[in-house]
Amino acid sequence: MEAAHLFRSSLELHELTRLYRAVRQASGALSAPLSDADSTVQSMPDASPTKWHLAHTTWFFETMVLAPHLPGYRVFDETFNFLFNSYYEAVGERQPRPKRGMLTRPTLQTIYAYRERVDAAVERLLDGGPAPIVAELIELGCHHEQQHQELLLTDILHLFAQNPLRPAYKTPAPMLLESVPAASGYRSFEGGIIEIGHRGEGFAFDSEGPRHRVFAQSFRLADRLVTNKEWLDFMSDGGYRNPLLWLSEGWAKVRAEGWSMPLYWEEHGSTYSTMTFSGLQPVEPAAPVTHVSYYEADAFATWAGKRLPTEAEWEHAALDVSRTGNFVESGRWRPKPAASGGGLRQMFGDVWEWTRSAFLPYPGFRPVAGAVGEYNGKFMSGQFVLRGGSCVTPADHVRASYRNFFPPEARWQFSGVRLAEDA
Amino acid sequence: MEAAHLFRSSLELHELTRLYRAVRQASGALSAPLSDADSTVQSMPDASPTKWHLAHTTWFFETMVLAPHLPGYRVFDETFNFLFNSYYEAVGERQPRPKRGMLTRPTLQTIYAYRERVDAAVERLLDGGPAPIVAELIELGCHHEQQHQELLLTDILHLFAQNPLRPAYKTPAPMLLESVPAASGYRSFEGGIIEIGHRGEGFAFDSEGPRHRVFAQSFRLADRLVTNKEWLDFMSDGGYRNPLLWLSEGWAKVRAEGWSMPLYWEEHGSTYSTMTFSGLQPVEPAAPVTHVSYYEADAFATWAGKRLPTEAEWEHAALDVSRTGNFVESGRWRPKPAASGGGLRQMFGDVWEWTRSAFLPYPGFRPVAGAVGEYNGKFMSGQFVLRGGSCVTPADHVRASYRNFFPPEARWQFSGVRLAEDA
Amino acid sequence: MEAAHLFRSSLELHELTRLYRAVRQASGALSAPLSDADSTVQSMPDASPTKWHLAHTTWFFETMVLAPHLPGYRVFDETFNFLFNSYYEAVGERQPRPKRGMLTRPTLQTIYAYRERVDAAVERLLDGGPAPIVAELIELGCHHEQQHQELLLTDILHLFAQNPLRPAYKTPAPMLLESVPAASGYRSFEGGIIEIGHRGEGFAFDSEGPRHRVFAQSFRLADRLVTNKEWLDFMSDGGYRNPLLWLSEGWAKVRAEGWSMPLYWEEHGSTYSTMTFSGLQPVEPAAPVTHVSYYEADAFATWAGKRLPTEAEWEHAALDVSRTGNFVESGRWRPKPAASGGGLRQMFGDVWEWTRSAFLPYPGFRPVAGAVGEYNGKFMSGQFVLRGGSCVTPADHVRASYRNFFPPEARWQFSGVRLAEDA
Amino acid sequence: MEAAHLFRSSLELHELTRLYRAVRQASGALSAPLSDADSTVQSMPDASPTKWHLAHTTWFFETMVLAPHLPGYRVFDETFNFLFNSYYEAVGERQPRPKRGMLTRPTLQTIYAYRERVDAAVERLLDGGPAPIVAELIELGCHHEQQHQELLLTDILHLFAQNPLRPAYKTPAPMLLESVPAASGYRSFEGGIIEIGHRGEGFAFDSEGPRHRVFAQSFRLADRLVTNKEWLDFMSDGGYRNPLLWLSEGWAKVRAEGWSMPLYWEEHGSTYSTMTFSGLQPVEPAAPVTHVSYYEADAFATWAGKRLPTEAEWEHAALDVSRTGNFVESGRWRPKPAASGGGLRQMFGDVWEWTRSAFLPYPGFRPVAGAVGEYNGKFMSGQFVLRGGSCVTPADHVRASYRNFFPPEARWQFSGVRLAEDA
Repeated sequence: MEAAHLFRSSLELHELTRLYRAVRQASGALSAPLSDADSTVQSMPDASPTKWHLAHTTWFFETMVLAPHLPGYRVFDETFNFLFNSYYEAVGERQPRPKRGMLTRPTLQTIYAYRERVDAAVERLLDGGPAPIVAELIELGCHHEQQHQELLLTDILHLFAQNPLRPAYKTPAPMLLESVPAASGYRSFEGGIIEIGHRGEGFAFDSEGPRHRVFAQSFRLADRLVTNKEWLDFMSDGGYRNPLLWLSEGWAKVRAEGWSMPLYWEEHGSTYSTMTFSGLQPVEPAAPVTHVSYYEADAFATWAGKRLPTEAEWEHAALDVSRTGNFVESGRWRPKPAASGGGLRQMFGDVWEWTRSAFLPYPGFRPVAGAVGEYNGKFMSGQFVLRGGSCVTPADHVRASYRNFFPPEARWQFSGVRLAEDA
Repeated sequence: MEAAHLFRSSLELHELTRLYRAVRQASGALSAPLSDADSTVQSMPDASPTKWHLAHTTWFFETMVLAPHLPGYRVFDETFNFLFNSYYEAVGERQPRPKRGMLTRPTLQTIYAYRERVDAAVERLLDGGPAPIVAELIELGCHHEQQHQELLLTDILHLFAQNPLRPAYKTPAPMLLESVPAASGYRSFEGGIIEIGHRGEGFAFDSEGPRHRVFAQSFRLADRLVTNKEWLDFMSDGGYRNPLLWLSEGWAKVRAEGWSMPLYWEEHGSTYSTMTFSGLQPVEPAAPVTHVSYYEADAFATWAGKRLPTEAEWEHAALDVSRTGNFVESGRWRPKPAASGGGLRQMFGDVWEWTRSAFLPYPGFRPVAGAVGEYNGKFMSGQFVLRGGSCVTPADHVRASYRNFFPPEARWQFSGVRLAEDA
Repeated sequence: MEAAHLFRSSLELHELTRLYRAVRQASGALSAPLSDADSTVQSMPDASPTKWHLAHTTWFFETMVLAPHLPGYRVFDETFNFLFNSYYEAVGERQPRPKRGMLTRPTLQTIYAYRERVDAAVERLLDGGPAPIVAELIELGCHHEQQHQELLLTDILHLFAQNPLRPAYKTPAPMLLESVPAASGYRSFEGGIIEIGHRGEGFAFDSEGPRHRVFAQSFRLADRLVTNKEWLDFMSDGGYRNPLLWLSEGWAKVRAEGWSMPLYWEEHGSTYSTMTFSGLQPVEPAAPVTHVSYYEADAFATWAGKRLPTEAEWEHAALDVSRTGNFVESGRWRPKPAASGGGLRQMFGDVWEWTRSAFLPYPGFRPVAGAVGEYNGKFMSGQFVLRGGSCVTPADHVRASYRNFFPPEARWQFSGVRLAEDA
Repeated sequence: MEAAHLFRSSLELHELTRLYRAVRQASGALSAPLSDADSTVQSMPDASPTKWHLAHTTWFFETMVLAPHLPGYRVFDETFNFLFNSYYEAVGERQPRPKRGMLTRPTLQTIYAYRERVDAAVERLLDGGPAPIVAELIELGCHHEQQHQELLLTDILHLFAQNPLRPAYKTPAPMLLESVPAASGYRSFEGGIIEIGHRGEGFAFDSEGPRHRVFAQSFRLADRLVTNKEWLDFMSDGGYRNPLLWLSEGWAKVRAEGWSMPLYWEEHGSTYSTMTFSGLQPVEPAAPVTHVSYYEADAFATWAGKRLPTEAEWEHAALDVSRTGNFVESGRWRPKPAASGGGLRQMFGDVWEWTRSAFLPYPGFRPVAGAVGEYNGKFMSGQFVLRGGSCVTPADHVRASYRNFFPPEARWQFSGVRLAEDA
């Protein structure tokens, strides 16, 4: 880790300490209902076990913060650098990603002990008044762990969905089975030179900057998300059977995988259910559709005579929008029908919104030196940007400039659709 | 299940009761050192989780014995028929084999409760003096469970071998690091008409019969198993690099998989270690080689100027041999160097011995009617026969007529080599 | 090539010369209707291009006969040893099998020139009165080329079947659309010690020997082949949908490949057509079914309450049968309905008959030393034996002891079914 | 085909006629040295046979122009719509792409006859003074065919490279084995609002428009292409072994495919050769590197401390550059060392230049209605844009706004690297 600044932190030390504790406790709370087995199994190569998420985020603090910056720190277990490194080539060899689920040992109990040991050491660092670069690394570690909290939930839902028992992670919250979605309209935005990218105050990931100018055409953005009801219309209009609506790669996927509805949906006679954290539940017509791929989002937009927004359009529109919404803290963990009324609704929370922008470097982007430089830049091919956060994102984790990304075929994350059109 | 006789049992009722209890307790003892996670993860499509073995063997009793033969019996859980059916097409749909490791629920505790419930019900049946066909089904279930005990150990070793920590299932027994294998010679057998196949007394699987005549040429059989020392000679003589020694499919496997030593071996400088139930341990020169495929066994025999025995030769030679040896009860769980002295040694226990016989029906073989008829007959393509049992086989499970089988590329079972030659 | 005898030839020199010329001319006649492109394309990894067959058989004479035994012989082209070696590891590296279809050069014309050059050289050897071992190698080369003649036709049919135009290799012969198959019965054979394997007079492949005794149970053999009509009954009775009829590996194949009828069959409303050398033609009810795998043959036999014969039974039964039948020379190139009347019909020609015997070494079998020793022995795993020859086999190529072999899933060869049962 | 304008043609009728004839004759000239077999074989799923290119481009005229617009036109062969449709879902089912190489029939001669027949009919249309929309479709067909001319050469090189004989398509031109590449410098460009996209005069593909404003940062562009010499430096500095230089997906490819040099390169001791249209030839140090993927181009740029240009930067820089260069008409068919001297060199011809821009729709882009609307839009995921044309591109086919695209792992096209950096 070089001394180069990652970003300029705006946190006071006591704020950082509070953030660290809150984030670390939240991870523990998420894993509490899970058994040793639940937390160990890997349901597909793209997903990771809960235990691995818990250990990897801890390894990040140990490797990036404690080992270089806490004098005399001894690592908890020498083998963990191999076991829990995700993809940092600079840090050495690691357990192959598709084999993360083979690690029945160390046990979940050992990982909890690992977390306690590292927490105690980080607290010592925080007590001692860490240097700015160290404070920034700790803050980075917190945001990193928040990302993994969302992945932990996303991945455990996928695992439970593979089980024919469709087990529930928790008891269901009462549903608002509104059958009529809120009315939908479009907000207009003037074109011209706009600025996007992180402003440089407070934390942001490297890929969110540099802030820069882009030229945007005038455009209009839907004031709420596409609903399950609208998706059912798309399905009953033959959306999954008409190749002319689809990108070529998308259509190949439809045929190879037999896609005919969003991931996790099941048809029972004339009704649809979907896998949730409360087990199998009815599809709510008024709620936003989720677990759709970029290919599906794009096909839907073509069918609707619209298009997906670009990430610049989205960010520009989001500037004046309050960063509130249906996040993980609500405990609902399913997207929620839009409130009635005007204005841009559901911009933050509920579901990540696919944009038609590929995840590429902003002008002037340079990864920071050292291992943390592998954070985002190396994924800048084959991915599309998603914006806004989801119902399993921590509320203080996202912002208008936040760039999430997934490959266009991915469906297991909470991803949905907001339409746009040229003005 | 038809009323047709499976075999003629020679067990008294109290003997059957004793067998049932012993077998069921043995399974519990094998799984005792394993965590919920250890017992849930599936390390490859050919292997099954411990929890699945424990549940499937119990489901066998429930489905084949209790449901049809214990009036008023209610199944423990309706979903288990789907979850724990292995391959019985007659009994309905089931969890796909490669997805057995997704079942983090039901938990190991629930499976233990399932076992207790079924045990109590079977005991009631036994108390009531079951009809002969029911007694035979219970006896079949015991032998079925013994097969799964061996698989459980075989599979758990494979799982632990995928873990870079190479965890130990149990603490190591002291090794007898004899570097000099016992002397090896050949026993001669006269050719002519011989009889093989189960005699019809006591239990046997359907594929072991009918007993029938075959004509055998005169032959000679090695009086002990091939050792690790001899295998090292094969390796250092380029055995894994010379295509002329190999069957065509075997050589394709050598190249595709990069085989250069038995499964689980690791080279460290000039020495070799191997994964065992006690973690990574030195390869013992005098002990029998194990975890080799049919292709390797055949290539070794070609290199040695010998051949593998046929199953008829092996069974004929085994007739006068005491059915004792290094079985699971010894707790060693590794093959053991041959004792010095003459006579056929290591015929039973230590390692399953590859024969050059394909697993095919004996003359007159007919599967029994009903679901248990799917037991062996449907696997009669693409497999070779192995004889004699291994160091993780229950001692009372094998006999001279016992036919085990694996595809020629399989290596994770305890399989080794005994050489033969024409007289 | 060692001086060891391959077999004891019973041919006079002038007979050998006549055989050589006839075989070589026959290959040319088979390829005459094919274009350069037809002869170059490879339709699947298991099939080879016509041009490759023509060159490989010539390379066999060049490499095994001319290079070692004709003083001063210079190879036609140094690169051909790489291009046209099939699988002889002893002779060096070669073009990978799945890439044989990449060889648009050398052209078909060059290969014809190659054949002429080699023919002239072999004729010189024959003129000079070759040593016995050389004569035997030439005879081996002739039988080798006959095998490839059958493969050439088998493979070109597969290629043409991939073409949506379903092109014809030749104009159709008039069909005998008999809708009523000849009556079928069973011939009985006494059990006891019988002898099988080549007697040692005339040519045979190494795997046909040594002649040896086996003990056979009494058995009965169907006196004609299974017909398309009977296969349609199997289909309409749900034969392809009932897992209980199938070997486990076979059922997996049925589901993975969607098998519901023999290879090359197409359903048009209520009738069936099949790809032939004359393009798409109606399925003849009375003709023997062909292009079925071992799995299908075995499932059919189970459905019919019968079984497949062993190769020993087949050979024993064939001893008194005249070696005549519907072979390639007839020009029909489709299996033909059985004649009416008693006795074993269709034992030779029409279709290769699946036996339930795995292709394994006979007692005492040893491959000959040198490259020709790779001829058969290395394929002795994963294959089943077929007997009797087909409608595209040269008439003088087969005999009662002839052992053809294919993996159980193969369907593109002319393979069919004769039923057997225990007496 | 709707009457909506595709583009506004600026060609007089006699110019269109001249273009049509020239393009059609050029295809014939390219295929003249190829045999029926050469023109039939498909070397990989991404490549198509020459015969297929010749037929498909003709089918395009028949289907899009003649069938709807020439009264009384009868198609040459009803089956060709199935055989030679590439991917137009609106036009119906088609031969699966990976099976294009199975079509040994129709023969190359038949395809030549097909071309003549269609040419005669198009000439009749041209004679009659076609309506503007028809003229535009014919012009589109010409540009479409030029694309396939480049693909034809690209694909035939790939086919010949699979042949161990490394056959030459034509005799080699004398090489200019200059070992010292021309000096390299950077040209600076001011940032600000710039315009890109086709201006609307003359032909362009739909994806080149609409012309629109973008905001560019100031940047600098290398004044020549990266050379083989520079690539060798990258290689000897461990470029293919250092994961930190690579995109994550790129590094996975390096390891899975064993990439260690550009496609077609072969190492012979200390020198390198490469497959060309004249067979295997020495790598020219001063010539531009080619046959590198996006991943390699990006890794090279990272290694060099630079980056790839965006497509907007490239197009902006190309505006004042003469559209001349090393194109297919030169007959060289290999990239050529840069001339010495200043100014942007090699912008057109030699090799397609990877940009860091994903192939995405321009603001306001809408595919035209009907089948030709499937031309570009459906490929707008998973691809990167390349600019400038190559040594096998027809000279009048490219322009500054031309957007070629390939997936980031593709290497068989003539693709190379021009570096850029922030100002």
